Amino acid sequence: MKTITVDLDATPSERSYPIHIGSAILSQIELIMTHLPRKRVAIVTNTTVAPLYLERLRSALEKQDVASVPIILPDGEEYKNWQTLNLIFDALLTNRCERGTPVIALGGGVVGDLAGFAAATYLRGVPFIQYPTTLLAQVDSSVGGKTGINHPLGKNMIGAFYQPRAVVADSTTLETLPERELRAGIAEIIKYGLIRDSIFLAWIERNMTKLLARDPEVLIEAIYRSCRNKAEVVEADEHESGVRALLNLGHTFGHAIENALGYGTWLHGEAVAAGTILAAELSRRMGMISQVDVERIRSIYVQAGLPVAAPDLGPEKYIDLMGLDKKVAEGKMRFILLQQIGEAVVHSGVPAEALAETLLECTAHA
Amino acid sequence: MKTITVDLDATPSERSYPIHIGSAILSQIELIMTHLPRKRVAIVTNTTVAPLYLERLRSALEKQDVASVPIILPDGEEYKNWQTLNLIFDALLTNRCERGTPVIALGGGVVGDLAGFAAATYLRGVPFIQYPTTLLAQVDSSVGGKTGINHPLGKNMIGAFYQPRAVVADSTTLETLPERELRAGIAEIIKYGLIRDSIFLAWIERNMTKLLARDPEVLIEAIYRSCRNKAEVVEADEHESGVRALLNLGHTFGHAIENALGYGTWLHGEAVAAGTILAAELSRRMGMISQVDVERIRSIYVQAGLPVAAPDLGPEKYIDLMGLDKKVAEGKMRFILLQQIGEAVVHSGVPAEALAETLLECTAHA
Repeated sequence: MKTITVDLDATPSERSYPIHIGSAILSQIELIMTHLPRKRVAIVTNTTVAPLYLERLRSALEKQDVASVPIILPDGEEYKNWQTLNLIFDALLTNRCERGTPVIALGGGVVGDLAGFAAATYLRGVPFIQYPTTLLAQVDSSVGGKTGINHPLGKNMIGAFYQPRAVVADSTTLETLPERELRAGIAEIIKYGLIRDSIFLAWIERNMTKLLARDPEVLIEAIYRSCRNKAEVVEADEHESGVRALLNLGHTFGHAIENALGYGTWLHGEAVAAGTILAAELSRRMGMISQVDVERIRSIYVQAGLPVAAPDLGPEKYIDLMGLDKKVAEGKMRFILLQQIGEAVVHSGVPAEALAETLLECTAHA
Repeated sequence: MKTITVDLDATPSERSYPIHIGSAILSQIELIMTHLPRKRVAIVTNTTVAPLYLERLRSALEKQDVASVPIILPDGEEYKNWQTLNLIFDALLTNRCERGTPVIALGGGVVGDLAGFAAATYLRGVPFIQYPTTLLAQVDSSVGGKTGINHPLGKNMIGAFYQPRAVVADSTTLETLPERELRAGIAEIIKYGLIRDSIFLAWIERNMTKLLARDPEVLIEAIYRSCRNKAEVVEADEHESGVRALLNLGHTFGHAIENALGYGTWLHGEAVAAGTILAAELSRRMGMISQVDVERIRSIYVQAGLPVAAPDLGPEKYIDLMGLDKKVAEGKMRFILLQQIGEAVVHSGVPAEALAETLLECTAHA
């Protein structure tokens, strides 16, 4: 098992937390015992994950005399909304969960975002622990404290920065992950390489076949290096006033795709892959990276079996949806672009023509 | 004008904020200009307050070239729920409010709690400014960062600790406050005297007639001394892990009353008054204060024209509803009791008999 510590500020007792990464650590309750003085937790999961891992976690907890309240949600990005969040509140209240009762998220990014936002706001905040079971959640969404729900007008528009007390990423849970979700997770792994870690990117290229084959050691290494990257960025800028925005490479386009097609139609990682190609194409048009770089990026995603052609929504629709982006400041869209492979920058001066040209030439009908 | 600074921790730039208290300061926009670099704000208010003060604030902002998006909610505690919160999100999104656009609450406690929770969670947090227009909001709810909404199963069950950047309490807005709401605000003023400031309590007793007559100087002094008390408590314990719970004197009973009768039937301050009498009676039965003390407390509330007899819901109903209290820990109800007048304590060892006897003997039918 490997452990990374996320140090958030000068008061480490409250704000630093460990990310444990390893094989079959789901049932190692000693990793979180310090957060269970009351011997009771609520476990938020979904209808897909519950049959696979809920009983394993519950019985491990029971062996330590920890009672658990299971809360099973419907599965899918289209349920990441207030109605589903309210199912969690109803269950927490009905079961009289208290301020000292931790909420555990057992599942992928949607479960983590919902459970985290519920933990942030139930009784104005209760302890929160992440057990991510998808690759995307293990390498990205379970770390860093972003929680929230979608709004009909935009993705992740309502939420909170709320850090977990611990993250336990058990790589064996990836054995049951559908192929498509494995690939979607790889999209976020590639992201770290592109924005800040070209050595990692080269490693990903060399190890893509093993990643797709779910080689346990390669998976753990990929999760570890991804989390280390994420932790460094979040430590530097918890609330996204600066460098943290770089983690959104491909996300401004990606969120527009997810929203336009209906949440859940494309997986988040798929939309990010296609969105990153658009960001790369835009970077090239801004004179930042070369055509060779764009082709290298495209071929990594192709290797991963991810979509590289964004749907043709028409430039107007893209621009309208991207105007809702959380990074918009003083009416200006801000894009994450690539200065070079391994170095992303925030750019608020993208000319309208470069954007329109990219959207016209690089979406699916082209 | 008087100003109190709330200092929350070692990084004052982010976390300390001023409470300005004075006459006709609603239109002194210079008090908040530092928070308006983008020249745009959203103003959350309600159908009662909007006709009285919205245009005054908007035109004062306009004189400083600050545009404002008005968001007008229905008025009443019964609207402090997710549906109303969502009206705010819809308006913020439709008007493309950004991370840098502050949300101003212009109204009483309900408006402040809703607007504050919206500010805490819209785009995972935008700047928040309070313009409280009721006595209750000026002396209590606008200070300290508690925001939230009610849930059918309990009051303020969903929310966040989210501090405003500034509080501007204009005492002239109290001229239009209905008599009943003025009295409800006095309930929270009395609370500070009871829990930690016996000198202030004696001052309140001497000045009750002037308070009820809305004597401007006496009102400002009462608001100032209340906010100073609140600020001291919040500075010591922002997230209510200790001493802040004392501010809930009468609230455990009071919330049960509000919930049982339907939100909005009794005003919050009215429920707190009757709840405080129950807390005082319970304190006496626990051997903490004398019958003379209880009578003194009762006569203060009578003087203020507040209800001193809690409704007879039956002990079971009270106990059931109080079991949902946020202060419950390890299944034990915790009560705020009076050690003496001017000194409250948290008590988790109240015998069931003392509680049942108090509820049987001291609710309205008795």
